[in-house]
Amino acid sequence: MYYLSVDTLAHYCRQVGIDSLLARGIAQLREDFGRWQAFHKSPRHATHYPHGVIELMPCADNTYYAFKYVNGHPGNPQQGKLSVFGLGMLTDVASGYPLLLSEMTLVTAIRTAATAALAADYLARPDSRHLGIIGTGAQAEFLILAINQVRPLQQITYFDTDAYAMDKLATNLTNQAFTLTRAPSIQEAMQHADIVVTATAAKQHGQLIDTALLQAGQCILALGGDCPGKTELTPAAVERCRVVVEYLPQSLIEGEIQQLGAEAVWAELWELVSGEKTNSYAADDIMLFDSVGFAMEDFSLLKLLYLAIQQGELQPTGELDMIPRPENPKNLFGLIM
Amino acid sequence: MYYLSVDTLAHYCRQVGIDSLLARGIAQLREDFGRWQAFHKSPRHATHYPHGVIELMPCADNTYYAFKYVNGHPGNPQQGKLSVFGLGMLTDVASGYPLLLSEMTLVTAIRTAATAALAADYLARPDSRHLGIIGTGAQAEFLILAINQVRPLQQITYFDTDAYAMDKLATNLTNQAFTLTRAPSIQEAMQHADIVVTATAAKQHGQLIDTALLQAGQCILALGGDCPGKTELTPAAVERCRVVVEYLPQSLIEGEIQQLGAEAVWAELWELVSGEKTNSYAADDIMLFDSVGFAMEDFSLLKLLYLAIQQGELQPTGELDMIPRPENPKNLFGLIM
Repeated sequence: MYYLSVDTLAHYCRQVGIDSLLARGIAQLREDFGRWQAFHKSPRHATHYPHGVIELMPCADNTYYAFKYVNGHPGNPQQGKLSVFGLGMLTDVASGYPLLLSEMTLVTAIRTAATAALAADYLARPDSRHLGIIGTGAQAEFLILAINQVRPLQQITYFDTDAYAMDKLATNLTNQAFTLTRAPSIQEAMQHADIVVTATAAKQHGQLIDTALLQAGQCILALGGDCPGKTELTPAAVERCRVVVEYLPQSLIEGEIQQLGAEAVWAELWELVSGEKTNSYAADDIMLFDSVGFAMEDFSLLKLLYLAIQQGELQPTGELDMIPRPENPKNLFGLIM
Repeated sequence: MYYLSVDTLAHYCRQVGIDSLLARGIAQLREDFGRWQAFHKSPRHATHYPHGVIELMPCADNTYYAFKYVNGHPGNPQQGKLSVFGLGMLTDVASGYPLLLSEMTLVTAIRTAATAALAADYLARPDSRHLGIIGTGAQAEFLILAINQVRPLQQITYFDTDAYAMDKLATNLTNQAFTLTRAPSIQEAMQHADIVVTATAAKQHGQLIDTALLQAGQCILALGGDCPGKTELTPAAVERCRVVVEYLPQSLIEGEIQQLGAEAVWAELWELVSGEKTNSYAADDIMLFDSVGFAMEDFSLLKLLYLAIQQGELQPTGELDMIPRPENPKNLFGLIM
């Protein structure tokens, strides 16, 4: 089984270029959301603690099985640790044998951003040029650059309660074609934005966005409401919007709609990708992508990486000795004699 | 995060000795079954295919989180592959960060055997000396040696439909204190046995053991009925027994009792370990351990291995570069600039 380390992945991102990698991620996700019925789907498995959550996210088609281990510990940065760490595996459905073990902290940031961009491509008005972002933590740059792939951006307004998080965003995105403007409040970050991204980590029923902050015609990509008891919009704000989710059974547990139920939902993302439903871009509509992160998105990125290895474009870090190879498969005991 | 390869694990088994490792496994399982309420428990996540099953098995207490990836592909040996491959991970609940990635094919064989032995210690008559085993595939030697730790065995009678599987068992266990007798049928393997182990791989509602084959006073350790549609005893045979399971919500889906329901169950194993229920060893009783394999058992072995590494007794294969360490935890993007 191949192994991809953080170093290898970071090197690959630099080599291919993050813009190009995000574009490939979006394309792979578009392909996979477009064949939604091909997947074995289930809500992720979550183990909740007062200080965080640990999750397993499996998804498979009839060729590949993928899963991701991922945590969400909002207090981690205070100890110098990432709030989200991820690790994933791709295996062969025919045999059950493993193919690839990969770091998935960087990959999670990429897939989350690529999924948000894919949704924006169906939900944001075609002339969207101004992005407002609330929460400029670990995923912010990835999100901005991914959305830039589907709606070439001219202006970014951003807000975070942590000044450092805003500083590093400005530093990291210095040489881009869009302008970056630090906003003094959520309201000012949002008020002229065509697309609004929320990506905050606090585990609480948030009140970041109430109805009064919403503008007709906006597209809201809400990523931080992704756990029971963890939302970013008020229920009234969610109800004002035309809501799109990834996978309803999981979103009902974890998404912004957890306080509202299935009636609040207009579509699952795959319905837009496959053309079963079409956004009318009505002037008064506010489109909301209530994203929680679905296991198929990890599947798509792991498959992309595995194919890149197979095509010789991505050099794996190495191979792991994880598969016993006894002389005869029934003679496992022979290995320890 | 530490990494334990197949080679390292096999070397460790030879170094410590499989008997000693099984004894330690039994002790760790006894401790953990004895503090059952401390665990976050759920049935495993299974993705079913016509040719096999792929599973994720998470279990955690408030210190460690563990999961195992494992498959069950009964047709694999025909392609020279193991029918069961496993890989597991132990992580730190406080941070969600990973501690150990380990091969778990050998470890699964050890933990399955140690769990069966633990059950035998509570269910088999104290004077049990004769073991009959049906199915002498990859797990058979581990099972026999583990049970030998709790009931010193004098005689083994064994049967398998595959002559090779019987040959390799005889070869692998040549220098043991017990005698080994090849039986021409299930009936003859079982008829004088105090303890009967079934460990077959076929995915079907088996009819290996009907009521007529059971003897009063026997202890049956049934391991191969561990998937929906996969059982080894007839429902009538199960009903004749006093049934003990690992974790009822999972056993109802996967165990021998899947055709009978909760009414057929006398106890969960932890109730015997903790002394909440006691085996009366009534002469007419037939005790059945309906084992499907529960995630806490993998937790116990991963913890055992991790502690052995920490104590310097087990040298890990190496460390994996899976944890990003950006200058600031919010500056993940900085890693790819």
